[in-house]
Amino acid sequence: MTNEKLTTRDENFSDWYNEIIQKAEMADYAPVRGCMVIKPYGWALWENIQKALDKRFKETGHQNAAFPLFIPMSFLEKEKEHVEGFSPELAVVTHGGGQELEEPLVVRPTSETIIGHMYSKWIKSYRDLPVLINQWANVVRWEMRTRLFLRTLEFYWQEGHTAHATASEAEEETLRMLHVYEDFAVNEAAIPVICGMKSETEKFAGALHSYTIEAMMGDTKALQSGTSHNLGQNFAKAFDIQYLDEKNQLQYCWTTSWGLSTRFIGAIIMTHGDDQGLVLPPRLAPIQVVIVPIFHNVEEREAVLQYTQKVLTALADFRVKLDDRFEQTPGFKFNDWEMRGVPLRIEVGPRDVANDKLVIARRDVPGKEGKEIIEFGTLTQKVSALLVDIQQSLLKKATAFRDSHIFEAQTYEDLQQSVEKGWAFSYWCESKECEAKIKEDTKATTRCIPFDQDQKSGSCVVCGKETSTKAYFAKAY
Amino acid sequence: MTNEKLTTRDENFSDWYNEIIQKAEMADYAPVRGCMVIKPYGWALWENIQKALDKRFKETGHQNAAFPLFIPMSFLEKEKEHVEGFSPELAVVTHGGGQELEEPLVVRPTSETIIGHMYSKWIKSYRDLPVLINQWANVVRWEMRTRLFLRTLEFYWQEGHTAHATASEAEEETLRMLHVYEDFAVNEAAIPVICGMKSETEKFAGALHSYTIEAMMGDTKALQSGTSHNLGQNFAKAFDIQYLDEKNQLQYCWTTSWGLSTRFIGAIIMTHGDDQGLVLPPRLAPIQVVIVPIFHNVEEREAVLQYTQKVLTALADFRVKLDDRFEQTPGFKFNDWEMRGVPLRIEVGPRDVANDKLVIARRDVPGKEGKEIIEFGTLTQKVSALLVDIQQSLLKKATAFRDSHIFEAQTYEDLQQSVEKGWAFSYWCESKECEAKIKEDTKATTRCIPFDQDQKSGSCVVCGKETSTKAYFAKAY
Repeated sequence: MTNEKLTTRDENFSDWYNEIIQKAEMADYAPVRGCMVIKPYGWALWENIQKALDKRFKETGHQNAAFPLFIPMSFLEKEKEHVEGFSPELAVVTHGGGQELEEPLVVRPTSETIIGHMYSKWIKSYRDLPVLINQWANVVRWEMRTRLFLRTLEFYWQEGHTAHATASEAEEETLRMLHVYEDFAVNEAAIPVICGMKSETEKFAGALHSYTIEAMMGDTKALQSGTSHNLGQNFAKAFDIQYLDEKNQLQYCWTTSWGLSTRFIGAIIMTHGDDQGLVLPPRLAPIQVVIVPIFHNVEEREAVLQYTQKVLTALADFRVKLDDRFEQTPGFKFNDWEMRGVPLRIEVGPRDVANDKLVIARRDVPGKEGKEIIEFGTLTQKVSALLVDIQQSLLKKATAFRDSHIFEAQTYEDLQQSVEKGWAFSYWCESKECEAKIKEDTKATTRCIPFDQDQKSGSCVVCGKETSTKAYFAKAY
Repeated sequence: MTNEKLTTRDENFSDWYNEIIQKAEMADYAPVRGCMVIKPYGWALWENIQKALDKRFKETGHQNAAFPLFIPMSFLEKEKEHVEGFSPELAVVTHGGGQELEEPLVVRPTSETIIGHMYSKWIKSYRDLPVLINQWANVVRWEMRTRLFLRTLEFYWQEGHTAHATASEAEEETLRMLHVYEDFAVNEAAIPVICGMKSETEKFAGALHSYTIEAMMGDTKALQSGTSHNLGQNFAKAFDIQYLDEKNQLQYCWTTSWGLSTRFIGAIIMTHGDDQGLVLPPRLAPIQVVIVPIFHNVEEREAVLQYTQKVLTALADFRVKLDDRFEQTPGFKFNDWEMRGVPLRIEVGPRDVANDKLVIARRDVPGKEGKEIIEFGTLTQKVSALLVDIQQSLLKKATAFRDSHIFEAQTYEDLQQSVEKGWAFSYWCESKECEAKIKEDTKATTRCIPFDQDQKSGSCVVCGKETSTKAYFAKAY
């Protein structure tokens, strides 16, 4: 099935994306509209994402916990902007154990409210602060237009929720976690994200302000890939999260939240994938090296399979798969593993066995150029070096692609053209009106106001007002 | 807070259990009836349980995946016994995105139905078999009487779901996973479980038969700690899970499912805990060693804290916590970490620093007997050996306790007395009537029919009928 021709990205990027997910067996459609089944290969990728992030969370002092799936409807209503933002998207449990419930329960769309409630019980004194907790969880948002991984009714994510004594500590935490996401995206997923602040319109419902990592997909659309929110005292006031300070005065906490979801799998697919299928960054790939034995008869098979055992032993420190299926040809297997984006393929044929050699092929460099014959003795070292090189090459390629599709748009016409072929980077007066006009005319939204501003000033690309703020504008997923 | 006196097990086992969970900060009550918040210390224990199990699942060829939280109500109705068993316990979503749903969605109480539906799509040929998938998930059962960890509306578990070509392969898998649970319980949690088959009355709703690992708690009640079900072709027929065999004939698959949940945390608490609090098996303990510095003034403090850094370095391979809180006394800390069940405590005072020595105290041996002074040079080796010894001692102690509370009850009177002070092990004719009578008269249920039967025969403890089957009877959680 994976050997059927894949729609190319140029033909139809959206079909290409959907087909890859099916052919590489990442996920499938569930019988409930908008829900997905994440298949073992897709989940193994998510597990590697989890490990890479969880390590970083623990290194920065966070602990995991688990808060309930169900939230009383009344909790949502305690923070005005929050309920306005989320109420159109709620799934509601009205019956339990055969009885109608007195108060309907919401299936969590995010957990600020229920965690806020618990923090108000747990936090008494400045000595209890900061509280630094994360949870790995499923959440539900009743979306109307869904896409596998990118936007599904139920999705998987981590949500960090922290409480602090001061505004500056909360802001510090918000930025720290944004940079944890950036570090993860760049160094584990080889995705060159741009960090910045969300506009007032685009921020999280209930936040003081939101930061984001924005990535450019292969069709030049933007994907918000992780967000970190400074919630100020909004939730602390709504849920009475208070502490006694050193002078025995009651103070409201300052809280943050930050999340990254299975949507990030979509980002990996659309950043690195090519017309042969998935291309996975070695550091996250469930399988880093696949071994394909090649033989024409029973004697050859025996010799080759014996040799592959030697190869497996030499590569014990990597994530390796031996494809010893009998019913498939080597050609079929090559295509199959290319579709699944495995970074390195090792081919072992009778001649290789005789010469104590191997053929090694890079997924990211198609054809003969990416293939070489190596001595068995150099195998471990070679695989190690190639995986590092592939990781770097993917990042370099994605960065070059991104940079060649960002345009400094000076005029409104420039901007309109730019967002048809990439992202526009323009002066913007930060008014909602100018932002809304761009969205209406072009379907592009403000992606973020990056931290690196050149300190010069210029004219807002819409209204011409003098401003020192530049922002990215793009069509987005 | 943790230093307030704990109710003893003899005073009130149930209060003792609830207090430990609060004082050791394992979990808290959620604002929704019957739901729990698992706090960081409890969740860290669950993460260690997950790691130990997940490793075993992967070693036996299973892969993880993720299936949806929501199941169409009609799916539940496809397997008759299944819907009868679960329908009183369902949470139902009737509204999504502000609209009433055409078909209500059930929040999964277990996933046989939705996974069965997906397997019927995925499985075509004998070449696709076996399918060996597990998921780590939250599930919801609308229980009326709840207890933290033991029985909560929402709980966390893993559920394995496999499909096979033959009845014998399915039976083999069912038993394999039961023994994986047994191995985990005995060798990681130091809980000496008894393996066996559930009676017809006690089996999983929809199973051909169910196997269980049963543990004895500190009050001698039984706790079903993990189950493995041979589902026969029941779900395959209900969901059309069919494959073409080697002769191109369409056949129904044989399926299994097996699960272990956060209830197991309750088993750990109630197997090993004592009147000072939790006692955690070293292999699963989130903190294996706690270091408590002791000082009386600023100079001492500096010298002692410097020395603890040396200790931390020496113990880098263990899960170690330095308790450097300033506001608490050493005595408070000793009680606190005893409550939390940390296997080893290291005390470092000025005299120890001067002599290059340390005091090391075992959680499982109270008072002076469990305390010794050791040379710093022997620290790593000593800690390693003590953790192994504690692990073994806990298992030995729990086994002795269990064995001294199982009674071979020959007569009905014997049985009635036995289940007041432990478990009864008796001949039973396997009839539902005799089982029901025991339950009605004594509140004890059949826990399991163990694999180790002595092949002799005797009289059913209720009706006197000749039988070669012996079963365990006990009051249970």
